[in-house]
Amino acid sequence: MSHSLTLPTGYRFAAVACGVRPDRDRLDLAIVVSDRPASAAGVFTQNRVAAAPVMVSREHVPAADARGFVVCAGNANACTGDAGLDDARRMAALAAPDGVRPEQMLVASTGVIGRPLPMANVEAGIAAATGRLAATADAFDAVTRSILTTDTRPKVSSRSLGPATVLGFAKGAAMIAPNMATMLAFILTDATVEPAALDAQLRTVADATFNRISIDGHTSTNDTVLAFANGLHAVDPSEFADALTAVCRELALAIVDDAEGGTKRLTVEVEGLTDVEAAVVARSVAESPLVKAAIYGADPNWGRVVSAAGYSGVPFDERDLSCEFNGIELYRVGEPVPFDAAAVAAAMRSRREVEVRLRFARGNGRATVWASDLTPEYVRLNADYTT
Amino acid sequence: MSHSLTLPTGYRFAAVACGVRPDRDRLDLAIVVSDRPASAAGVFTQNRVAAAPVMVSREHVPAADARGFVVCAGNANACTGDAGLDDARRMAALAAPDGVRPEQMLVASTGVIGRPLPMANVEAGIAAATGRLAATADAFDAVTRSILTTDTRPKVSSRSLGPATVLGFAKGAAMIAPNMATMLAFILTDATVEPAALDAQLRTVADATFNRISIDGHTSTNDTVLAFANGLHAVDPSEFADALTAVCRELALAIVDDAEGGTKRLTVEVEGLTDVEAAVVARSVAESPLVKAAIYGADPNWGRVVSAAGYSGVPFDERDLSCEFNGIELYRVGEPVPFDAAAVAAAMRSRREVEVRLRFARGNGRATVWASDLTPEYVRLNADYTT
Repeated sequence: MSHSLTLPTGYRFAAVACGVRPDRDRLDLAIVVSDRPASAAGVFTQNRVAAAPVMVSREHVPAADARGFVVCAGNANACTGDAGLDDARRMAALAAPDGVRPEQMLVASTGVIGRPLPMANVEAGIAAATGRLAATADAFDAVTRSILTTDTRPKVSSRSLGPATVLGFAKGAAMIAPNMATMLAFILTDATVEPAALDAQLRTVADATFNRISIDGHTSTNDTVLAFANGLHAVDPSEFADALTAVCRELALAIVDDAEGGTKRLTVEVEGLTDVEAAVVARSVAESPLVKAAIYGADPNWGRVVSAAGYSGVPFDERDLSCEFNGIELYRVGEPVPFDAAAVAAAMRSRREVEVRLRFARGNGRATVWASDLTPEYVRLNADYTT
Repeated sequence: MSHSLTLPTGYRFAAVACGVRPDRDRLDLAIVVSDRPASAAGVFTQNRVAAAPVMVSREHVPAADARGFVVCAGNANACTGDAGLDDARRMAALAAPDGVRPEQMLVASTGVIGRPLPMANVEAGIAAATGRLAATADAFDAVTRSILTTDTRPKVSSRSLGPATVLGFAKGAAMIAPNMATMLAFILTDATVEPAALDAQLRTVADATFNRISIDGHTSTNDTVLAFANGLHAVDPSEFADALTAVCRELALAIVDDAEGGTKRLTVEVEGLTDVEAAVVARSVAESPLVKAAIYGADPNWGRVVSAAGYSGVPFDERDLSCEFNGIELYRVGEPVPFDAAAVAAAMRSRREVEVRLRFARGNGRATVWASDLTPEYVRLNADYTT
């Protein structure tokens, strides 16, 4: 995949296996360095229990002179107290190129909660990685693989803006909820974007993409999206915003499509309320275990969808509500529509994507949330994760 | 089970199989009649999409002269529009004994959403049931079985108050969430309780029992708890409140223990916040699919518990937070405590009940929520329910 990619100019990459994961042969630590000071912005978990690297990175962005980041996988460095905070700061300091302050480096991590980082391994890993930073597709490819946990494949997306490139990569899998679950995403561009603009755009785009996906509704302690813009090429701001949106959306959908045990992508579209209400209803539907199990079973169970809307907290009159599965109206202004359940189920079985649309009659807003289905395999994968 | 029960005096029971369910031999319609006017109160789903029988019963309680209820299983009569409302009203009218107004009868139903009731069957069933009402243990036992859906066993609880009896029965299984999911419960007593007092007590008790359980967080359209008190025996009000609490709590726990595919009972106890905050945190933990999957897998994954508290929306400082599994402290004021994971996992495996306790340091309130675990069997059961 990476061989056809254009890397943005001015970034170097390295990934190593240093023993953060139990499988010592697997890449688990990566460093990305910007050769020149870059604008940087971040969006982080809204969980009250934030991992140590989140606390450290929050202090470092937005920035006008960021120089990169270090990320490890296999250990979340979350719920690790003051020692964990010291470890995260030390990772930033050790990963910083000569002459670069620790505050110019960002930190992220993903993995098991509540275990001290094996700092001897991390230190050796950072030393090894800094010695082999390279602006090559192979080095980039290794970085995209190093951050994965139960993901089955790397997630990469890019867009060209004349001479500039917007490149993103991410990891997802479980514990993904609206408001950033254990999801890491990194955006690198050689476009010129001021720090304040990057910060504002990243928040807006994350809200419409990463914050609109749901695997299991469990918001993690470690969610992090970081964006860097090193300013080599001037670009049109609105074209940059479109490219950033496209990259983040593609990564978000790639995360849903690689959900633990997932077999379907459920797209929930809600219209006819305010934008905010539509998003609340769409999330309520997308997070219902009963809806997700029905999607897994190719069951056109609009009753679960309508009742999940009903407990979302958004007021409505069911006589204003209609519901479609894959474009077929099954419930119209408060009354069921007779339909051929076997045919609709067969159509659901034949495609990976299922689209559920709810129409209300109270506003002009709309929202879309993307979700995975709930499968026996998801439960098996999550029943024995730490031991 | 019913043979050792004392029935409250003055109630008669009948259940019939009339073809509401696909399995025509299975009991699916029941009538309970109070021989004299009774105080009656009800607590219903908070879902905006309420089933027709819920809308009808809400209009009929609290009441001073209720005479009983009719309930059918296999069809929820939800999302059925005006025709469904007519059907629910007709059920009340047909089930009313001679000389009793429809408004003196209550209605409930459970089952598939969005299908018209087979009213010819329902009418024949009501006629048959009214002809065989009896104040016998066998008739009561048939009623307790007639309301079950995917439940594996009836749920019955009773307490004596001198000459008076408080008797309850319920159905649960899936779609059970705080705030009444597809759960039906009925309380019958021959004690004297004024309508307003019964209404107030039922609300308080339901909030501490039925509204503190969670199977899957999906609040149904049909949840109904009805209580009747026919006034034959004067009782001490506080003793009655205790008996009502005990019966409702026993029924609520029986519902959790018979959850679809469930193998464990998770008790989440939260203390050191306000009562309301403690309940919000406990629900957040009890509804996390990742926590529930860990409980299924006997995985002492306190990190998922702490992070589920973190996204509950209740503000706290993780340095004030401690977490125990089955009385063993695994996380103490923001720092992990080293523990023998294999031993704790083995202890979790050996018992059906798992107790998770979270201690905060900001208030004197507390709350308990009971939940089932999330299992591959739950997903299988719910992946193909309607078809």
